Amino acid sequence: MPTLALIGGGGFAKEVAEVARLNGYEVAACYAENAGYFGHIHRGYLDDLLAERDGYDAVALCVGATSRRSVQVRRELIAWLVRHALPAPPLVSPRAICAEGARLAPGVFVGHGAVVAVDAVVGGFSVINVSAMIGHDAVVGANVTVAPGAFIGGGASVGDDTLIGPLSMVMQGVRVGREVVLGAGCTALRPLKDGASVWPRLDRPVKDMTAPAVPA
Amino acid sequence: MPTLALIGGGGFAKEVAEVARLNGYEVAACYAENAGYFGHIHRGYLDDLLAERDGYDAVALCVGATSRRSVQVRRELIAWLVRHALPAPPLVSPRAICAEGARLAPGVFVGHGAVVAVDAVVGGFSVINVSAMIGHDAVVGANVTVAPGAFIGGGASVGDDTLIGPLSMVMQGVRVGREVVLGAGCTALRPLKDGASVWPRLDRPVKDMTAPAVPA
Amino acid sequence: MPTLALIGGGGFAKEVAEVARLNGYEVAACYAENAGYFGHIHRGYLDDLLAERDGYDAVALCVGATSRRSVQVRRELIAWLVRHALPAPPLVSPRAICAEGARLAPGVFVGHGAVVAVDAVVGGFSVINVSAMIGHDAVVGANVTVAPGAFIGGGASVGDDTLIGPLSMVMQGVRVGREVVLGAGCTALRPLKDGASVWPRLDRPVKDMTAPAVPA
Repeated sequence: MPTLALIGGGGFAKEVAEVARLNGYEVAACYAENAGYFGHIHRGYLDDLLAERDGYDAVALCVGATSRRSVQVRRELIAWLVRHALPAPPLVSPRAICAEGARLAPGVFVGHGAVVAVDAVVGGFSVINVSAMIGHDAVVGANVTVAPGAFIGGGASVGDDTLIGPLSMVMQGVRVGREVVLGAGCTALRPLKDGASVWPRLDRPVKDMTAPAVPA
Repeated sequence: MPTLALIGGGGFAKEVAEVARLNGYEVAACYAENAGYFGHIHRGYLDDLLAERDGYDAVALCVGATSRRSVQVRRELIAWLVRHALPAPPLVSPRAICAEGARLAPGVFVGHGAVVAVDAVVGGFSVINVSAMIGHDAVVGANVTVAPGAFIGGGASVGDDTLIGPLSMVMQGVRVGREVVLGAGCTALRPLKDGASVWPRLDRPVKDMTAPAVPA
Repeated sequence: MPTLALIGGGGFAKEVAEVARLNGYEVAACYAENAGYFGHIHRGYLDDLLAERDGYDAVALCVGATSRRSVQVRRELIAWLVRHALPAPPLVSPRAICAEGARLAPGVFVGHGAVVAVDAVVGGFSVINVSAMIGHDAVVGANVTVAPGAFIGGGASVGDDTLIGPLSMVMQGVRVGREVVLGAGCTALRPLKDGASVWPRLDRPVKDMTAPAVPA
């Protein structure tokens, strides 16, 4: 059984570890600043991984992106992984769907229930999270995070280091730049420039309905 | 083949009945105020079920929640089920995904296409409906309804008797109280207190585009 | 192996072709004004298909709808297909879920990850795209397009020639008319009349967050 080392020890690491096991890997070690959920196999951080790299068949980047800050952390870790030529195969849930002609670069993670349609391309170390949908011929850059339930339309493109929030959308053929943050439930109806941020309008708290739903 | 009695006879009962059959149950009887779709196996209501309980291996609560009123109806039925110690196993669609370490309390229903991620916990009689997504380590209380396509982020929590509308979201780590109604497509970016109601902003009807799309 | 001819050669045609192959068809020819992705098997347009119809076991309408204009194009092509009695079986992804009692008319396409619930009815040539959700007992008319991730509630109805955008919703039991356009991420909380258009409110571009997420 091939062995895998995780980089990162938080909740996202547990999701990656599960998918890795479903793909036949033994999750043998965790390298992280904080051991998180993986104290039992925690073996230090990056220097330690370099020293012990021959012990593993593959590594997986398991730091999730939920903000500009964590996108940047991932970017720096990816540069380090590439510099040291650590082998990071794509990890695809057997409960995801990758259609004919879809191409996944090294390091890509595809979660349960996600659909990557015909001839879509996903760049290095991008995350297509649970039940996200990537349309036909879409081009997703490197280190992009497509959060759960989000939709990238057919022929759309998303630049490197961009964060697409949960249940948000990029319409068919629309071009989204690099280093964009498209907030939760937002829609890119038109192109978004490099570095753009889009935030949702707030929902309405309903004052006169705040009575408890049910008696105590 | 073990036998199951439904409580409730509406459309949601049909969905539960299908999942029960896919799990090897014979759906033998329906107890409901209105027989609904199940007239052919309708055998009365709660008193009748109590009298005939020895005839079934399990019961399933099949009243759906779409409002505060129906959340309360469910709550009262659950109290009755618990008081009488009727056996209500979790019913999980074989087309749903329950990850490693996910824990489902008695009475939980998980619909087709739903994903319950690593180490998530779902409390008694909660409904994780079609294609809903529960993140890693999320804690969902009892009698919670997560409507189709909704997303509960990793590490988030949702209190008892709460209704999460279709395609709505609770962001990662956010705490949503008891007896909350989060409307269709709404987003809990921040914590919601017990009893809160959140409603969507209305979309825009487009007046000058109301001509028929195609000629008659 | 039965043979299939595509009508249309764009990206949606690739998705239909994949599902057809997964259903055991040989995709033998493409008839389209523009050969698109199918130059290698392109054999002309409608007149040519009529002349060569005996060479195929089935045809599939592969023009996607994303606007009133393309809904109308589809409508005219459907009328032509019906007039000439060309055989167009429903094509359902083996990775979709069609529940007990769901009825699909000829020409219906159901994409990967979609869920058509118990006793739902889908009319001729409608498209239930990737991961869309059709509730129990919902009645979807003919030539309706339900875009990826959209939700049609239990017992709702959608009239002919209507376009339901990605991640949009029709609430339980709500009646949506013919020739409606429900925009991306919009919600039909109440009935929509024939010909209505609903558009999303725009999200907020966040001016002071447009700095690049990560250094160049």
